[in-house]
Amino acid sequence: MNSSANSSAPDRPIAVIGGTGPAGTGLALRWARAGETVIIGSRDAIRAQQAASAIQQKLGGQANISGMENSEACAAADILMLTVPFEGQAALLKQLKPAITPGSILIDATVPLAASVGGRASRMLGVWQGSAAQQAAELVPKEVSVVAAFHNVSADRLNGDAPLDCDVIVCSDDPDAAQLTRELAARIPGVRAIDGGKLENARIIEQITALLIGLNIRHKGHAGIRITGLPPTAYR
Amino acid sequence: MNSSANSSAPDRPIAVIGGTGPAGTGLALRWARAGETVIIGSRDAIRAQQAASAIQQKLGGQANISGMENSEACAAADILMLTVPFEGQAALLKQLKPAITPGSILIDATVPLAASVGGRASRMLGVWQGSAAQQAAELVPKEVSVVAAFHNVSADRLNGDAPLDCDVIVCSDDPDAAQLTRELAARIPGVRAIDGGKLENARIIEQITALLIGLNIRHKGHAGIRITGLPPTAYR
Repeated sequence: MNSSANSSAPDRPIAVIGGTGPAGTGLALRWARAGETVIIGSRDAIRAQQAASAIQQKLGGQANISGMENSEACAAADILMLTVPFEGQAALLKQLKPAITPGSILIDATVPLAASVGGRASRMLGVWQGSAAQQAAELVPKEVSVVAAFHNVSADRLNGDAPLDCDVIVCSDDPDAAQLTRELAARIPGVRAIDGGKLENARIIEQITALLIGLNIRHKGHAGIRITGLPPTAYR
Repeated sequence: MNSSANSSAPDRPIAVIGGTGPAGTGLALRWARAGETVIIGSRDAIRAQQAASAIQQKLGGQANISGMENSEACAAADILMLTVPFEGQAALLKQLKPAITPGSILIDATVPLAASVGGRASRMLGVWQGSAAQQAAELVPKEVSVVAAFHNVSADRLNGDAPLDCDVIVCSDDPDAAQLTRELAARIPGVRAIDGGKLENARIIEQITALLIGLNIRHKGHAGIRITGLPPTAYR
């Protein structure tokens, strides 16, 4: 991957797959506001276009944002941000596989909450591969790098205007894809991006979401996490 | 449990079981410095006394701290802080069971790191009960309340003088024991204590330790966590 991979550009759009849910629209809003080119993907192209229009309106018509059916969004971008409930993740990836361009980066924020099968959102399912991100890595074409990130960011806060107060821990077996993802995370005001090591560590990051949901229920908040005690070089 | 349970006092000592390791001595130091009565427990009474003397010296002779063999420490206190490696937890609790006073609180900070069986300290073992804390709850007498806390606090930082920069998430099925533990956590400068709900949630808190160890290795730090986005009432 050459050095141009280190920053996304108008000619390198981000497709937010399953992007009409709260996390997806929040990330799309933040990235569009930061000047990124964003494509919202949805099963339903009309819904995707409506979500894109709503963000366009919020940003005063200045955003580079559009809406497409998920497969078309995949084909039109090589940075894919997946924000779907766990119960839809595997089926969607199998369906999208032919549309994913080799060399793409798939950023996965899926959390295997027990809510996926009717349980509590503060409890987790065990995933055979270790994490939802590792499941994703099994399902995408070989030439696609999977990155786990953005699990612990409050969707409510993403959809607001204030800077966030949280860190994004990024896990991947592809250092270049991880770096690009950390740079995308750092485009969101208030977010610090931290290298969390290999993709296998995603299982812990995913579980932290269940903890934060439990804290939100118990304390009525929009919890996030900050990692303390690391040198400044750890945040980038 | 009556209201006097809400604060420990000179007549309510804290026994730090397995207290000669880095986490144990750090907690003992911080609590002794805060005016708590502390008993360091160890397999070897002499080592326990040496660790207590070292802390006594550090605090200029003003501390209420002593050292005893683990069973004697257990018998002499009804607040028990367990800081042992996972591979020693079950055997030690079985051995101590007869010495634990009914009505005691056992605060467990055990983390089932894969290092326990020769693996990496950034990976976890699966514990059948869900967490080391839940394993502890199976092994103590029925009348003992188990609380999970202090997993994510840097032992290095505990053994220093500076205020910490981390939150302690406290999980227990006994609200009174959890409250007492939160108050003990808040005695450590820089620590905010947060109600993390039931003991079953300890599995996530334990896993965060493996994440922090991985971050420490990768970034050369003494990582801790802060929870953001909760109302002030959540911290106590």
